[in-house]
Amino acid sequence: MTGLREYLDGPHKAARDVVRDGLASHASLLDAGLRLSRDEYRDQVLATLKEIAAEGHPSRGFPKEYGGQGDLGGFIAGFETLAYGDLSLMVKAGVQFGLFAGAILHLGTERHHERYLSDALTGDLLGCFAMTETGHGSNVQALETTATYDAETGEFVVHTPTPSARKDYIGNAARHGTLAAVFAQLVVGGQTHGVHCLLVPIRSGDGEPLPGVTISDCGPKLGLNGVDNGRIVFDQVRVPREAMLDRYAQVDADGTYRSEIENPDRRFFTMLGTLVQGRVSVGGAAINASKVALTIAIRYADGRRQFGAPGSAEEALLLDYRMHQRRLLPLLARTYALHFAQAELVDEFARIFGHDETDAVRGRTGDTADGENGRVGPGEHDRRALEAQAAGTKALGTWHATETIQMCREACGGAGYLSENRLSALKADTDVFTTFEGDNTVLLQLVAKGLLTDYRESFGKLDPLGTARFIAGQAVEIAVEKTALRTLVERLRDVVPNRSDSADPDAGLRDDDYHSGLLQFREQHMLAGVARRLRAGIDAGDEAFEVFNRCQDHVIAAGRAHVERVVLEAFQHAVRDAPEGEVRDRLKELYDLHALSTIESDRAWFMEHGRLSGPRSKAITALVNELCGRIRSYATDLVDAFGVPGAAVEVPMVVRSQHE
Amino acid sequence: MTGLREYLDGPHKAARDVVRDGLASHASLLDAGLRLSRDEYRDQVLATLKEIAAEGHPSRGFPKEYGGQGDLGGFIAGFETLAYGDLSLMVKAGVQFGLFAGAILHLGTERHHERYLSDALTGDLLGCFAMTETGHGSNVQALETTATYDAETGEFVVHTPTPSARKDYIGNAARHGTLAAVFAQLVVGGQTHGVHCLLVPIRSGDGEPLPGVTISDCGPKLGLNGVDNGRIVFDQVRVPREAMLDRYAQVDADGTYRSEIENPDRRFFTMLGTLVQGRVSVGGAAINASKVALTIAIRYADGRRQFGAPGSAEEALLLDYRMHQRRLLPLLARTYALHFAQAELVDEFARIFGHDETDAVRGRTGDTADGENGRVGPGEHDRRALEAQAAGTKALGTWHATETIQMCREACGGAGYLSENRLSALKADTDVFTTFEGDNTVLLQLVAKGLLTDYRESFGKLDPLGTARFIAGQAVEIAVEKTALRTLVERLRDVVPNRSDSADPDAGLRDDDYHSGLLQFREQHMLAGVARRLRAGIDAGDEAFEVFNRCQDHVIAAGRAHVERVVLEAFQHAVRDAPEGEVRDRLKELYDLHALSTIESDRAWFMEHGRLSGPRSKAITALVNELCGRIRSYATDLVDAFGVPGAAVEVPMVVRSQHE
Repeated sequence: MTGLREYLDGPHKAARDVVRDGLASHASLLDAGLRLSRDEYRDQVLATLKEIAAEGHPSRGFPKEYGGQGDLGGFIAGFETLAYGDLSLMVKAGVQFGLFAGAILHLGTERHHERYLSDALTGDLLGCFAMTETGHGSNVQALETTATYDAETGEFVVHTPTPSARKDYIGNAARHGTLAAVFAQLVVGGQTHGVHCLLVPIRSGDGEPLPGVTISDCGPKLGLNGVDNGRIVFDQVRVPREAMLDRYAQVDADGTYRSEIENPDRRFFTMLGTLVQGRVSVGGAAINASKVALTIAIRYADGRRQFGAPGSAEEALLLDYRMHQRRLLPLLARTYALHFAQAELVDEFARIFGHDETDAVRGRTGDTADGENGRVGPGEHDRRALEAQAAGTKALGTWHATETIQMCREACGGAGYLSENRLSALKADTDVFTTFEGDNTVLLQLVAKGLLTDYRESFGKLDPLGTARFIAGQAVEIAVEKTALRTLVERLRDVVPNRSDSADPDAGLRDDDYHSGLLQFREQHMLAGVARRLRAGIDAGDEAFEVFNRCQDHVIAAGRAHVERVVLEAFQHAVRDAPEGEVRDRLKELYDLHALSTIESDRAWFMEHGRLSGPRSKAITALVNELCGRIRSYATDLVDAFGVPGAAVEVPMVVRSQHE
Repeated sequence: MTGLREYLDGPHKAARDVVRDGLASHASLLDAGLRLSRDEYRDQVLATLKEIAAEGHPSRGFPKEYGGQGDLGGFIAGFETLAYGDLSLMVKAGVQFGLFAGAILHLGTERHHERYLSDALTGDLLGCFAMTETGHGSNVQALETTATYDAETGEFVVHTPTPSARKDYIGNAARHGTLAAVFAQLVVGGQTHGVHCLLVPIRSGDGEPLPGVTISDCGPKLGLNGVDNGRIVFDQVRVPREAMLDRYAQVDADGTYRSEIENPDRRFFTMLGTLVQGRVSVGGAAINASKVALTIAIRYADGRRQFGAPGSAEEALLLDYRMHQRRLLPLLARTYALHFAQAELVDEFARIFGHDETDAVRGRTGDTADGENGRVGPGEHDRRALEAQAAGTKALGTWHATETIQMCREACGGAGYLSENRLSALKADTDVFTTFEGDNTVLLQLVAKGLLTDYRESFGKLDPLGTARFIAGQAVEIAVEKTALRTLVERLRDVVPNRSDSADPDAGLRDDDYHSGLLQFREQHMLAGVARRLRAGIDAGDEAFEVFNRCQDHVIAAGRAHVERVVLEAFQHAVRDAPEGEVRDRLKELYDLHALSTIESDRAWFMEHGRLSGPRSKAITALVNELCGRIRSYATDLVDAFGVPGAAVEVPMVVRSQHE
């Protein structure tokens, strides 16, 4: 379909093509995990990492002052494209250029940038992002590692006080990393100031751990075995005062702690907020891994025959079976939807963090006095919205990848289980995406919390408890909000009339406003319900944690409902802006499939809440089937438009099925 | 909970305990796949296979005449228990003792039994079950390999005529097997008689392929890398006439083909029916693999803390979070339901195939003349019911394993991704279960077809097309059936009144009859709908394949609805028969959770069909939440009752979480 691939690639086509070319020339990495020992595989991934660094991929994302191109959007688009190849390479690149170099860039100051950035971008300096501890995954504020300032020597002493404080799952740690960005509780003059980040050398040039540093290997994993995840224990390791990444807080030589952000929670979340790039990247990578799997499974289904019509000389193509269409095509439609949502997210990310990053940060750190009371400036608001959008897209994108790749594997039967056909690596490698860079359930809570607090600019905490506590303190505003929501719900009730159902169950089923009206109604209704339940619990004097926990499933559903609405609308924008003609017409048909299968999958909720009648619900299912049948005829065009390099998808079963 | 484990183990406790003890003494196999090269791992699996053979596990399932114990139920229960250990061992045992030795036992005659069975049971004779071909997975009737009788020499010539006829995914082929049970189109005197099975030597004693036999390795797989799956190509390989497994058909020396079963389709499905044991076994193994994963994830969640209540010194246990309960406990309840359904299936299997197998087979092969017209004797009917039940339990049990193990992995976060914590192996190894021993979607079609044809005893074909063709020929009976169904549906409408909803949405929600009434209504309504749609399509003169394909999703939904009803009722029986007191009370509570979450997950359908009101549907969700909260307090007792050997579940993250 002429023009579709160009439209999908969008403004970052060049960045994507550079990585596509790179992957094509490093195609031998695709089966390295099968051919090599684990250590050899890791070394091969590292060698390729340095080669793609030399080809310029990472520098694209960094400021021009440090040899970069300042093109953040292109950098993310290129990173996503790495998911068309070996996923260990993608993750290793994410650790090195995104997390490690990103921490130096965002949390450090010029001194750190000058000293480390260019070496980090070439891969000459390999680093770790040592945040997670054995006992502390989602709850980063509870990290136990300490960095205690010793004013006598002007050094920080980094220490692992308990077994649960051990740094764990740290990429680049087991074999290659020499410098670690370590997150630790900062203790100055006997006072704890919360989690801060310091650069701690962990390995000498010859690869041996430095004194006081104990490194072990996390060992084999379900997938991503080309990444050397490890564990780090610090025994009173001393680093100079300058090792602290001091953009948001500083410790003077005499042991005076200073920060522009007085509120410790706020400081913590400001620092953490700079890590949004990791979530943006993982979500995009997951969506792209789904594209690879769908390309394989749909091409296979368009060549493989089994059973068939009586009297026919040939068996029927798998893709001609309704059930096969039903299993694969709504997932294909959702992949498109997520692609467009991700593209909007990357644009927004580049806008906020991009060419004018300093201002964006000032928007956060420099806002007025009432910022400390919860009111924030416009830069702050944009960033928080971006964090929520990144969290939501990451959660839905990674769950989508798990579901899609699983379905593709099953749709390819035993052949899909063989490593040579690559679905097994896609499945194993992407599986952890749903829980790393933020556990998806925690992320959806974060989204919901953002929505609940949006009308009253303020800081809560990332953790569920914080939400409840925050809500407890805001009872009045919730009452206000309830009224506002009720009005909105009433208004939507008019947009989405139940009445019309009985007259003609099919009427308007392909109307964009109908789809977004339903999804808006659900989102607002769920949010209002959560607010009401939280309020009622607090009013009844119940314990905040218990109040929150009782409606945790409701909170998460509300978060998901919001993200689904945003994703749907991104697809609407993409159809609207598509080139007129075949591209737009087919995208509209695919959009309809996405919208209707999204509504179908939660049709129980819409019926429970009087937004769908039984007959109309059945009409939606029938229309989903019909759309699957129509889209089937150009399904291979839709996957070809992803532009996955041949080596990644021309696997033996696909090649063979085309000749059967 | 005293007595629960004994109750779960049931009559085959001894057989299960033998395997439990064996697994405990071979616990080093659990991480062999991580320590060893692929070939070493395969050899280690083989060595352990021979040791468990020496301990008597396989002989339990074979007739006393050949050194066995004739205890089929215990054999299957023991096999299922193998899923508590390394799953490559379980699958290799299934190939060797179930498929290979089973083919000899069921398809061969005394000559074959005498010559091969005892060596097969000790593992001295290692064999393959060479059915699947590269081009033919589900559609076994379309196999292309030929076995042509040469009356001159009294030999069969086994040959692979095309690339798609290559035997593929064959366990034991790549490294260890010396004799293969090969399924091939039998050609005698120029006439093809359909698929039959012959024993073909493929490897010499020194491990080299025999002349004319080309063997290759399927290479690495997502999981089960301790099983040596391979590909076999035959180039005019000659075997003596006696190599044919001739229980159901014989070829005389002079080239006369004889069979007691005249109809070729019927003969084929009779032979295939003997393979039901494979499906019974895989379903049970999948259910048991789910138990291992749940034991790990629930114990972890009862020790691991993250976030928590304000002001509390400790963070909260994961299992105290509603969402965590919601994710794990309905799956635990369904695991119990499937356990009891599987136990009923194994009983039925042992009854039909057990101590009196010869009679059971006679029931099939010896029925009266109208058997050829579709009417069959009682033995036949039992077997077909068993095949459907096995197909359905296998489909639901294996999908359940995939879903449950995935959920357990996510619920354990990054720790769940590390191989040392075993969920990764469970995930990777069980993944293929949904598509081997019958693709699940094809199996559910088989179930539905059985139900559609049940009232009119007859043979259709396994393939979807066959169903449509059969239905096309049976239009009158469908009309009859429709009336019968309508009556049943009316009757059920009274049992499951919609009316009562508005009065009290909670009334009777924990009533067994209400649950089974709803599930019966759904099943019968779906079946009637499918029959009506097939009939309408045929009446309109549409092509049979097209008619079938248009409602394939509906057919599969009907099959699933049937199996879910059977599983639900098995749990009802198990509660009824449980020891009075704590065991029965808690099983009843767990049963309620299973019943209500099953209804909840398809509540859209019940609302669409007027069986649930919105308020009642919401009341079900609320009750599911409440039950999760109650069952949480004894959830670890429920997993401990599975009796998974310690080495399989006391993984590092679980041990650590108990000390955090």
